Formats: sequence, C-alpha cells, structure tokens
Amino acid sequence: MLYFDNAATTYPKPEQVYKEMDRLTRECAVNAGRGSYKKAENASAVINETRKKVSEFMGAENAEDVIFTSSATEAANRVLRGYGFEENMTVYVSPYEHNAVMRTLEALRKEKKFKIKVLETDEKGYLNLDDIEYQFMCDEPDFVCINLASNVTGYVLPAERVADMAKEYGAIVLADAAQAAGNIEINLKETNIDILIFAGHKSMYGLFGVGGFITNSRIFDRDKNITPVIFGGNGEDSLNLELSERGISRYEVGSPNIAAIGTLKTAIDTIEKDLSGTQERENRLLKYLIEKLEDIDGIHIFQKPETEEEFQNHIAVLSLGFEKYMSDDAGTILDGEYDIAVRTGYHCAPLVHDVIGSKRYGGTVRISMGQFTTKEDVDELVAAVRDMR
Amino acid sequence: MLYFDNAATTYPKPEQVYKEMDRLTRECAVNAGRGSYKKAENASAVINETRKKVSEFMGAENAEDVIFTSSATEAANRVLRGYGFEENMTVYVSPYEHNAVMRTLEALRKEKKFKIKVLETDEKGYLNLDDIEYQFMCDEPDFVCINLASNVTGYVLPAERVADMAKEYGAIVLADAAQAAGNIEINLKETNIDILIFAGHKSMYGLFGVGGFITNSRIFDRDKNITPVIFGGNGEDSLNLELSERGISRYEVGSPNIAAIGTLKTAIDTIEKDLSGTQERENRLLKYLIEKLEDIDGIHIFQKPETEEEFQNHIAVLSLGFEKYMSDDAGTILDGEYDIAVRTGYHCAPLVHDVIGSKRYGGTVRISMGQFTTKEDVDELVAAVRDMR
Repeated sequence: MLYFDNAATTYPKPEQVYKEMDRLTRECAVNAGRGSYKKAENASAVINETRKKVSEFMGAENAEDVIFTSSATEAANRVLRGYGFEENMTVYVSPYEHNAVMRTLEALRKEKKFKIKVLETDEKGYLNLDDIEYQFMCDEPDFVCINLASNVTGYVLPAERVADMAKEYGAIVLADAAQAAGNIEINLKETNIDILIFAGHKSMYGLFGVGGFITNSRIFDRDKNITPVIFGGNGEDSLNLELSERGISRYEVGSPNIAAIGTLKTAIDTIEKDLSGTQERENRLLKYLIEKLEDIDGIHIFQKPETEEEFQNHIAVLSLGFEKYMSDDAGTILDGEYDIAVRTGYHCAPLVHDVIGSKRYGGTVRISMGQFTTKEDVDELVAAVRDMR
Repeated sequence: MLYFDNAATTYPKPEQVYKEMDRLTRECAVNAGRGSYKKAENASAVINETRKKVSEFMGAENAEDVIFTSSATEAANRVLRGYGFEENMTVYVSPYEHNAVMRTLEALRKEKKFKIKVLETDEKGYLNLDDIEYQFMCDEPDFVCINLASNVTGYVLPAERVADMAKEYGAIVLADAAQAAGNIEINLKETNIDILIFAGHKSMYGLFGVGGFITNSRIFDRDKNITPVIFGGNGEDSLNLELSERGISRYEVGSPNIAAIGTLKTAIDTIEKDLSGTQERENRLLKYLIEKLEDIDGIHIFQKPETEEEFQNHIAVLSLGFEKYMSDDAGTILDGEYDIAVRTGYHCAPLVHDVIGSKRYGGTVRISMGQFTTKEDVDELVAAVRDMR
C-alpha cells in the first residue's frame, strides 16, 4: 500500500516511537501522579518531561502552560466549552476550521446566542487581511478561531497577523495547530495567540491518545478564563468535591495515558533534529507532485500554489478534483486498482468547500505526504492518476 | 518491586496485550471510519470487533450500545453532563462513588440546583436496602449513581437490587463499573441499570486510553437522553454543523485510538477464558491476606469481610490503617524500605472515608491484587507490615 493519508494520521511512525511505546507500556505504565511509590513517580516524571518538551517545541513560556488531553478534538471542546461566551459576542472563524472547532462552536452558539462570522478570503481562498481589517472595524472581534494550516488544501494561514489584528480589539485568539504542529515552526510566546490546540498523532509523529492545549501565559490567564469541563479524580485533595482553582490538576483528571504522552517526547525528539530539512524535503515533493499533475488533463488542483511565496505557505497536503469521477469514487479506484490510500470527501472541514469550489466533485481527493513519502511514491501516484483520467 | 496497586491500574498486562498493541500500532493504526481504503476499513473492523466483544462481555443487548471514550472519567462526564438534570430532581449516590462521578455531579448540581442524597448504609458501611427503600419512599429518586465495586474497600455493592428499587420510581440508574468490570460478572440487559461506565485499563487488563459507556437499550434511549457533550469530526456528513440524531457517530468523534480500543478485545479474550477461576483465586488470596494480617497488632482493616457471604461481596482490594503511621507515611515506608507499591490516602473517593472511619489515618493504605499477584507476594507484604507495626 502507498500511504497518502498523512494528514489524517502520520503512518508509519518512526521506529523509536514504537520502541518507546513498548518500553513505557511494559516498564512505566502505572498510574502517574497518585502513587507513593517509585514507579508512579517515574510515570509522573515521564509526563512532565514530555510537558517540557512540548512547551519548548511550541515556544510556550512555561512547561505548565501545556495541558494534555486525549486528543485535539477533546482539547478544542474543553477550551471552547470552558470559555465564557456570551450573547453579545462576535466570534470570527476562518473558513478552514475543522469540525472539532466548528461543530463545538455551533453547539455553543445555539445555547449562548453569540454571532459567528467567517473571515474574508480572496479569489484564491487565501485570507484577505485588508478585508479582515475592515471586518474587525465594522464588527469588533471578541474571539477568533484560526486554523494554522488547512487539512484540506495545505494552506498555511497568516494566523499571527490575524492574531495581531484581533488583539488590537482585545479579542481572544484560539489557533488550531492540529495539522500544523510538526510542519511549521510555532513560537507561541512571541505571538498574540492566546490558546493553541495540538494533536500528537499527526505531524508530531506521536500515537493516538494524546493532544492538548497550550496557553500563552504572557497574555492569557488560563485558570481564570477556561472553566473545567471534565471533572474527576486527580490524586489531589480527594475529599474536596471541587477542582483546584489553579494549576495543571484543574484540567488533567483521570488516569493519564502514560504511553501516549511519553512517546510524544520521543516523537518530537526524532522530528526536531531536522525539522527544516524535512519541511524543505516535503515542500520539494509537493512541487514535484504538482509539476507532474499539471501535465494531466481532467484533473483540477484546488488552491494550487504557484509562486514561491505560495509554496512557502503550503504544507505537503494537496486536494484534487477529477472531472471524470466524484471524489469518493476516485478514492475507491485508487485503492482498489492501484493500492494507493488517499482520503476523499469533505475531510471534516465544513466551510472550505464553498471557498475552493469542491462541492461539485463531492469534496476532494486529498493527497497528504509525510516524512516517509518518497519521490518514487509520488511517481507511482501520478502514474495511477494519469491512468485514471 | 511488588505491585499492589492493581485497583489504580492493573500491571503488568498479559503478554498478548503488549504484542497486540505493537501489532495494531505498526499494522493498523490509520484513521478508522473515514478512509476509502482497505487499511482504514480494517481499522474500523478492529474497533467494531472490540465493540462486539465488550457488549458480549458486559451482557449488552447490542454491540451498538457500546460507546468508546478515552477513559471512564470522560465517560462519566459525558453521560452526566449530557443528561438533562433539572432543578426539581433528586439524585442519589452511594457513598462509594469516585470523583469522576462525584465532582462531575457536584459541578452540575451547582449549575442546575438539583438535590444530591447519599444512600443509607449500615454500621459496617454496607448499603442498607431497607433504609434505602424508605429513603426512596420519602424522596423519590430521579437518578441514581451507584458504584458496582468500591475502589477503596473492595466492597461489591448490591447495585442490581438498588436499580430494581429505583426503577419502581422510574429513576435512571447509572452504574460505575470502572473497578468492577473484569472482577464481577455483569449482564447489563438483565438488570434495571440504564447506563454502565467502564475503564479498559483496570481489571479488564487493557491499556490506558480506552473506556466508555454502555446503555441498556431495552429500557433506555441513549440517543434521546444523552445529549452530546464532545463535538467534532466523525467522517460523516462533514458539511453538517450538527451531529446526527442517532447512532454511535453521535458520540464517537475525533480520531479513534485504534491501539487502545483494539487491544481491549485481546485483553478480554485473555481474561474471559477463566474469569470465575481468577475470581476464586483472587478471593482466596484476599482471605489469606486477611488471615495473616489479623495476627498483627496495630493494624486496622477497614470493612473487613468476615462471613462467606461478605467475602463473596468483595473483590481483591483491601484497605488498612496503621496505628503507628499516617497512611501516606506507611506507603512511603513500604516503598522505601521494602520496595512494595501500594496506594495511600483517599483514593479519589470523597464520601467513603466517613463511612469506614479512615479520616483519622489520613485515608487508607490500599492493597489491591491482580491476576499476577501470588501467595508469595502476599507473604512478603505481610512480613513487611509485621515488621513495620
């Protein structure tokens, strides 16, 4: 099988990640943070080392700014549901938001009656900063949700610029780094982003079972502004029916998933060694893929990067439309006839398809590459696409 | 290290579980339920086979009654927060509830203003069914939370009897099987329990990262009565900002943790082969442990089973108090001097300590056994306790 679904989850993982999973599960997987014995203390140490590693990797101010959850979806829910939205607020979203954000926000909107507005884009679907400036002027933002990179087209959004603009109105900025973390450099403490969501199992090359949110403690008071949504035991002050007012234990309740959390450290160790090299390599592959696809008739590339600047603003994710096939059918043929795994359809991103015009294809055929994708893989994919059209 | 903290999490796991974790992570860990390719379909199949296995193991009516979450804590939160509590309701809890239930309920009580009452116990701390009958008569139950087995004393609560009594008033019954599943037989469809919560990583011998809730579809309409709390992508109807009205995808959103879910099937395979044999063996060990501890002065056993019937109503968890030491100190000595791992303190169970009188010891020293605990381990533990007192 040729795997081109790395935007869903990177596969395979680096060998070190599998090995560390095995080691941690066999040697350390007791209940961290609660025990009065050495192995439990070790488990806690593994978690805190990962916390430190994640905070450094994302440029957080302090390790304690990182809260682990079981997934980015859970993180988005806990942040949004825990934030005090009110009726008179205006919440802006980019059209690139994932349903982890959009469905959660929509459920809250129904309850709290705030307004949701979509950030303006240009004819190519890129955010239009001038228009956004005007939008903010006409209807001041209270909260902005912005995806750092699209899981559909690979577009890297100018999130920091939008955050700067939003911050002039005192808005809170939530950035979804599920797709971006591991692909683009993030230095949270130097931005006006208040809250960052991440997924361990995508381009950070960790396992399923860990994600989280990181707050920018320089500008955002997490403990005051995000009310806990998930309650439970945390091995702390057990007789108290309320969670503590401050600190990690306000959010991290229940038995931590030591293997998923601990292997994330290993995963980051493997990718941070040559992050820019990998980024360049994947960008070259993307260019190569696009060059090859351009020769083929009957194929549409959504939001195709053309200039060098546009390439710099794309991660190695590309969406196609086949004139001859609806996207799901194209995926079935690629799988059945060529043993090539792509993702097809709407990719849990509800707003982007109007922007890029992919609805008439039934969504897109998404090709997403990772650190194990080779030029030969791309050649094989292109040959299959040529064969199909 | 001698491990006596199996009530926190069983450790180690059966070798088959480690092997299956490695296999699934290496061979199957793509994004299930969304792909149009074979490996994604395989991943979905793994999840659905586990769903079937869990449903059979717990005696659910249908496989589709099982909803996977990342933990029992998350399951408790989603069930309680998703249920429509109202101001005029009376919610009963046993004094054995864990903070995953109690803290969640308390947070909801503050918001919704319903009443929480504690089920009556006798002088030994066992539920007093006559008194409970009278309680229900005086203040009719709308909702009852009952732990199937105490994580502090090992007491197996008469949950089915209480459920029968509650059902006469039309109350909804939530049973917490986090500690019980894998230790006592559960046949959900033949009870009046509406909702059952389980943890994969305790006596079911699975990994961290999987738990869930199972609804008794014979008497409880899950999709109507439990509103989703966590929103996100589920690979289904992506353009729709709302989750579907019915079905598993109403609750299971985000990327499923294929390794944690899939290995739970393997774990159940290993334990169900000789479940009653293991139960008998652990019960014999518990008896042996108690016999040996009884000879030692300066030790108090909380809620000590004495009659054969009481032993039948105890899983292999025992709580001690040392006259000479506060519980945390006793745990530190057991670890430091004897390399024995126990859990000390209040065990995330806020109400039980008044019932069993353990507050003056600073909680309890909890000894919890598992399928890998041997008679020799117990001898070594008893020798250490004798040495210490």
